[in-house]
Amino acid sequence: MNAERLPRVVIVGGGFGGLTAAQALKGARADVTLIDRRNFHLFQPLLYQVATAGLSPADIASPLRHVLRKQKNCRVVLAEPIAVDLEKRQVKFADGVVIEYDWLVLAAGATHSYFGHDEWETIAPGLKSIEDATEIRTRILLAFESAEYEGSEEARRAALTFAIVGGGATGVELAGSIMEIAAKTVVQDFRNIDTTTTRVILFDGNDRLLTAFSPESSERAKRTLEAMGVEVRLKAFVTNVTRDGIYVGDEFVAARSVLWAAGVRANPIGMSLGVPLEKSGQVKVEPDLTVPGQPQVFVVGDMASVTSAGKRVPGVAPAAIQMGRYVGKLIKGELAQASHRANVARKPFVYWDKGSLATIGKAKAVAEIGGFKFSGYFAWLIWSLVHIMFLISFRNRLIVMFNWAWGWFFFSKSARLITGDSQMRIDEMKANEVVIGRELSKLEVPRP
Amino acid sequence: MNAERLPRVVIVGGGFGGLTAAQALKGARADVTLIDRRNFHLFQPLLYQVATAGLSPADIASPLRHVLRKQKNCRVVLAEPIAVDLEKRQVKFADGVVIEYDWLVLAAGATHSYFGHDEWETIAPGLKSIEDATEIRTRILLAFESAEYEGSEEARRAALTFAIVGGGATGVELAGSIMEIAAKTVVQDFRNIDTTTTRVILFDGNDRLLTAFSPESSERAKRTLEAMGVEVRLKAFVTNVTRDGIYVGDEFVAARSVLWAAGVRANPIGMSLGVPLEKSGQVKVEPDLTVPGQPQVFVVGDMASVTSAGKRVPGVAPAAIQMGRYVGKLIKGELAQASHRANVARKPFVYWDKGSLATIGKAKAVAEIGGFKFSGYFAWLIWSLVHIMFLISFRNRLIVMFNWAWGWFFFSKSARLITGDSQMRIDEMKANEVVIGRELSKLEVPRP
Repeated sequence: MNAERLPRVVIVGGGFGGLTAAQALKGARADVTLIDRRNFHLFQPLLYQVATAGLSPADIASPLRHVLRKQKNCRVVLAEPIAVDLEKRQVKFADGVVIEYDWLVLAAGATHSYFGHDEWETIAPGLKSIEDATEIRTRILLAFESAEYEGSEEARRAALTFAIVGGGATGVELAGSIMEIAAKTVVQDFRNIDTTTTRVILFDGNDRLLTAFSPESSERAKRTLEAMGVEVRLKAFVTNVTRDGIYVGDEFVAARSVLWAAGVRANPIGMSLGVPLEKSGQVKVEPDLTVPGQPQVFVVGDMASVTSAGKRVPGVAPAAIQMGRYVGKLIKGELAQASHRANVARKPFVYWDKGSLATIGKAKAVAEIGGFKFSGYFAWLIWSLVHIMFLISFRNRLIVMFNWAWGWFFFSKSARLITGDSQMRIDEMKANEVVIGRELSKLEVPRP
Repeated sequence: MNAERLPRVVIVGGGFGGLTAAQALKGARADVTLIDRRNFHLFQPLLYQVATAGLSPADIASPLRHVLRKQKNCRVVLAEPIAVDLEKRQVKFADGVVIEYDWLVLAAGATHSYFGHDEWETIAPGLKSIEDATEIRTRILLAFESAEYEGSEEARRAALTFAIVGGGATGVELAGSIMEIAAKTVVQDFRNIDTTTTRVILFDGNDRLLTAFSPESSERAKRTLEAMGVEVRLKAFVTNVTRDGIYVGDEFVAARSVLWAAGVRANPIGMSLGVPLEKSGQVKVEPDLTVPGQPQVFVVGDMASVTSAGKRVPGVAPAAIQMGRYVGKLIKGELAQASHRANVARKPFVYWDKGSLATIGKAKAVAEIGGFKFSGYFAWLIWSLVHIMFLISFRNRLIVMFNWAWGWFFFSKSARLITGDSQMRIDEMKANEVVIGRELSKLEVPRP
């Protein structure tokens, strides 16, 4: 064992930024601690496929301990820090326990923002965690179940209407997937309803979808969605969300299912730093991703606000990975130098924009890579390959490929499970005046 | 559409018995309704693999609507009936809604019994539903997490001790799997604990495990488990279960995780029939599986108590399938005859015992088929093939085969996700005086 105390590197968050930072510290002479409230890394770009029953949670999750099992200078702690004390160099937990650091990497991510209306969250869940995804999956599937037994045409219509708020990648992907489920996957499953009459309405406050893309790609995505039957409502500002539907300006749209994919709010741990933040909570970091005045405290990923080549670095997975790797390498390098000479000046973080990808449906996607714009089958192929490639484990790559191939041929969504407290769900449906068993349909019965 | 009213066949429960009955009614001139509180059929024999992180829930579940989508005389209703009114020929729901039947098939299954101590259930969950399985999975994984940061050796020991109550197939399978996780899967994942020191103790009140098997097979299973490191305690009667451990007679065994796989209690809907029941709630049915005095009301599967060839038919999947098929065909036959002539006498249900199988671990199982007894690799191979064969969908067969092959080569358990309200979990760990961050271990750090 080692008598001298090793430099302690504490990383908060096991997402793309934090995990990559930990991995970049492999072989460093340091005592690395990765803290996350979950025991797994989640491949968030495919989370919408869990929400739409195409994949199982385990297919896109990798246990952090397993990923880091051979990196013996790193431990994993399952816990949720609530604050940082820059003065004492401590990360603090709710119960008063602290972990001390010499170097700190904050990579605790971001979630959706309800623009000051947090009360909408229970009605219109966002999509950030595995639990969000299985909750949304359950809601989508229960919508069809309740529609099957609604007494009135009006109520049936509301049950079969899905409103999605936010026209970024997640909103577009959810809209396309739900339409596919309704129009292809469950068409034969019901006896009273025609699921192809399902309405999916995608709302966005901007004048176009996918603002990270060029206007041409936005227009293509819109046309593709509309060809699938999705209604796209731009410059639409949500003013209220209720259990019965959504208010857009003064207009009421009856929709039993409202899903939220808008806004960004950085993890509130950034507030404890006492440094300037963006309105949505990101920490305004220096070009080397450090907190101002704190050369050994870094912020990476969706929690960081930084510019590269004059443009704000976007809150996407590739940016988080690049920031994590930059910081991990920087710390490892300075730890190695420390015994020899004083720190040299740091090179600033430079974001390499590899392009943007968003999928819409089967063989439907938009892609912009190095000035080239693709859409349709070829863009979808690139999207698929890139996402398979970046999945953490080889096993998950195989499983996801298998599930996609299966879905391709059979339009199947195999994880169509309504889980959780189903009795509560059924009661909820009944509260919505769903008349299970009261009005059973005529069936097609063979003639003698 | 059909003017004359068709005979209404109502099936309660979409497990092996109910689903098979519905399928056997394919093409019948009847209006068939399958009612289940879940929207999927669950392949329960592999549920322990979900609980031990080897499979995902969707791998062993098939949406009922999807399975029955092409059977146009059958509808699926997502609801939970609470009683039967034999007089009025109605199935009743909690909110007063009723469904009327001409023919009724009760196939609502059974759960574990806590021998009058239902208060143990929250401490020692059983394994009957998907939620049970993910709950047990979370508990097993959190046990290692909490052990990693325990302050005292004694507490660490308790966190790494798993007590399993009930030495039937489920108990044996759980014990073997948890030992494999501890001894093979997570060995490299932790820094403070040696997971190979994990204790798994299997308790049973009988003088042998697997009482459905011959004494020789029971002995083989016991020796196999013991060779893997599982402690088997026979003639052991559980007198109390607390959050700290389990009392066996007067002896206290400190164990943070207690899992329940003992006892049988049939679905309470049987009580509403007002006919004689077994002590554990099964309905004592006639040789044609009807409720006494009710020629058009059948009970199948784990809810039924019936003898065949002088022996009680066991509560296993093959028996439920055979009963379901027998009843489905019987109803279909009598419906076809009805227009021509009076009912003929019914042939009694005959159970064809195809043999018994139980798996213990990798390449370890016991099997008894037609008087032959196998154990070890060959028995495990039979077990694997039979279970793959009986999975409902081709897709699930492929996925399960893939997961097993992967597990075989890498001893991996890929679904190691701690889900649910993890903050609550963490708080629970803290209540157990787990000192996250207070005592961090020394790591192996590369020398310069």
